[in-house]
Amino acid sequence: MQANTRDRIIETGAEIIHRKGFNHTGIQEILNAASVPKGSFYNYFKSKDDFGLQIIDYFSAHFMRIAKETLEDGRISPLSRIYAFLTAFMEYFEAQNYAGGCPIGNLAQEMGDLNPAFRKKLSEAIDMMVVAYSQVLAAAQNDGKILKNLDIRETASFIIASWHGAIIQMKLTQSLAPLKNHRKFIFDYILKKRP
Amino acid sequence: MQANTRDRIIETGAEIIHRKGFNHTGIQEILNAASVPKGSFYNYFKSKDDFGLQIIDYFSAHFMRIAKETLEDGRISPLSRIYAFLTAFMEYFEAQNYAGGCPIGNLAQEMGDLNPAFRKKLSEAIDMMVVAYSQVLAAAQNDGKILKNLDIRETASFIIASWHGAIIQMKLTQSLAPLKNHRKFIFDYILKKRP
Repeated sequence: MQANTRDRIIETGAEIIHRKGFNHTGIQEILNAASVPKGSFYNYFKSKDDFGLQIIDYFSAHFMRIAKETLEDGRISPLSRIYAFLTAFMEYFEAQNYAGGCPIGNLAQEMGDLNPAFRKKLSEAIDMMVVAYSQVLAAAQNDGKILKNLDIRETASFIIASWHGAIIQMKLTQSLAPLKNHRKFIFDYILKKRP
Repeated sequence: MQANTRDRIIETGAEIIHRKGFNHTGIQEILNAASVPKGSFYNYFKSKDDFGLQIIDYFSAHFMRIAKETLEDGRISPLSRIYAFLTAFMEYFEAQNYAGGCPIGNLAQEMGDLNPAFRKKLSEAIDMMVVAYSQVLAAAQNDGKILKNLDIRETASFIIASWHGAIIQMKLTQSLAPLKNHRKFIFDYILKKRP
């Protein structure tokens, strides 16, 4: 029951923070939405910042599960996995009517330069995604599918960064066009091969 | 004197919103920082949203001035202008200790999916930058410096999107490395030529 209450606060908080941002979301608003009494919050979280850091862990674990399922899917080629990974998120964003975007990208934008504890936690989340991309890019390189002289880590960072930027444009255009443009440039000009 | 008061509110508000975001910034905080009496705000702005839209105009005009100076600088080659434009912002970000980032990108991230009036105004700001980039890319293409089959508008959008994403990573790494990585991939793999 106690664990359920914590999970409910985390899940409800994650949903609201994803939509509105961290600073613009109040604890009371989350507790109301989660139907949790006011006093409970501090049984589980030391502070709003502590809560925010646990929300980042929650989001990061979610993305790493998806990354594990798709980027490590040995049944298809490494480049097909990257394509499937990007496409899965496009379908998700379309279903969300282009709202919310990437919660890790959002929080990095909002909190990265304001709060060192958030910066550290968000950097770790991005680094895990860089490692996941690096592994699948290295596999493509071993298979001779992408350029031997492509720096794997730099390429992984560039793909993630430009994806986050494309999501910003998605919010403005209310369409998948910027994400499709991202996928096109990554495959046609960086990886130089469609899967 | 009246115009000065409005300008002071805009300039002070722009600085605080750039640092903290729009929703997290209060009108009263801006008026205190600008040393403007409380009643004055509504002489100049219909609402906080109206104020926010005028802040976007202020930022956009600022960037278009810089774009005009550098991207239209006929004394140097089109690709050198893009290089100089990116490098100028790197020097600015370094001087700011990597804080703040791009105010248009920040507001697009924060407000693009929350407020249609902001979305429209921010889209216009991005479109103006896409046009500025498109013109210099078209000039490089006419000179035979970049691939003839590169779609100019798509390339402009991709450069801007991936730049905004690199800025997010800059906030996390507290370094120019993500921006230098962006510049490297754009020049080496998309434009395929160093200026």
